[in-house]
Amino acid sequence: MASATRDRIVEASSELFRRQGYTATGVKQIVAEASAPFGSIYHFFPGGKEQLGAEAIRHSGALYGQLLDLFFVPGADPVAATEGFFAGAAATLRETDYADACPIATVALEISSSSEPMRRACAEVFESWIAGAAVRLAEAGIEAARARALAISMLCSLEGAFVLARALRSTEPVELAGAASAQAVREALPARHVSRGARRARG
Amino acid sequence: MASATRDRIVEASSELFRRQGYTATGVKQIVAEASAPFGSIYHFFPGGKEQLGAEAIRHSGALYGQLLDLFFVPGADPVAATEGFFAGAAATLRETDYADACPIATVALEISSSSEPMRRACAEVFESWIAGAAVRLAEAGIEAARARALAISMLCSLEGAFVLARALRSTEPVELAGAASAQAVREALPARHVSRGARRARG
Repeated sequence: MASATRDRIVEASSELFRRQGYTATGVKQIVAEASAPFGSIYHFFPGGKEQLGAEAIRHSGALYGQLLDLFFVPGADPVAATEGFFAGAAATLRETDYADACPIATVALEISSSSEPMRRACAEVFESWIAGAAVRLAEAGIEAARARALAISMLCSLEGAFVLARALRSTEPVELAGAASAQAVREALPARHVSRGARRARG
Repeated sequence: MASATRDRIVEASSELFRRQGYTATGVKQIVAEASAPFGSIYHFFPGGKEQLGAEAIRHSGALYGQLLDLFFVPGADPVAATEGFFAGAAATLRETDYADACPIATVALEISSSSEPMRRACAEVFESWIAGAAVRLAEAGIEAARARALAISMLCSLEGAFVLARALRSTEPVELAGAASAQAVREALPARHVSRGARRARG
């Protein structure tokens, strides 16, 4: 029961941080969303909101990282997997009225200059996503250093597309970022993929 | 004098929002930074912090949009201009200890689900940047619809690179996003550019 309360606090915090950021989310709102007693925050998180914040970032990061597995299944075409991942992100944005984008980007921008423990949590999550995508691109035949560089570029495209999509209330940036990322994957694949990809992409 | 005070308030707000976001920035901190009397905020901005916020977004957006002109000068190679723009952003990040990234992205993520006037201000700024970049890419010979799509992809890459760079305290994402964007520009240019670009990019 105690552990269930703790989990609900972390989950409610993750969701509130994603939608409105860290600063705008008060402890009162967190306990209300989590149906938890006020004092439970300081019972479970003696370091207060900052400790809870770092844990919520890691929690969201681990969940979101698993989404890669939905698209990059063993043997999948990495170009199609990339297209599918971005299309899934666009669909989620539409379905949630542009609220559910990256679970940690808002917090990352807010606190990078002010909270070193939370900045480090965000950095760990981004590094884990980069490593996860790089492994899958390398499995598709892309040389390791290039796979890592490509994973970083793709994550930049996705994160920026979320910023624009939320402000513009349009999924067009996500769709264009997905097409650009799929094209970059196509170009990085070994030759047997490139000739097929080139036929689809040029013209 | 009154107008100078108003300008200082807008400029101080823009700088604070860029570094720490909208929610974390209090009116007290704004008047302190602007060396303005407390009541002057409500004198100049009867709509309060939200009105000031929307104006600060438009102010920052207009200033930042002018940066394009530093790199996309008439007759410039658009590939080199793209590389230069991202390299300039990376240098600014390093020089400011990763504080000065996009002036409006933090606010855009924070308020897109909560303040319609500020979301609209962010959307106008992003649209103006997209239009500005698209015009310059079209002047370089890229067909108009493709130039707009490319401008959006490039802005996604830049915005996401800022998110990652601030969290990771590294300019590597900006450098990789710049290389990917330059490559996309190279591929979109008419044939006489592509052959030269292809020689530099492949291999």
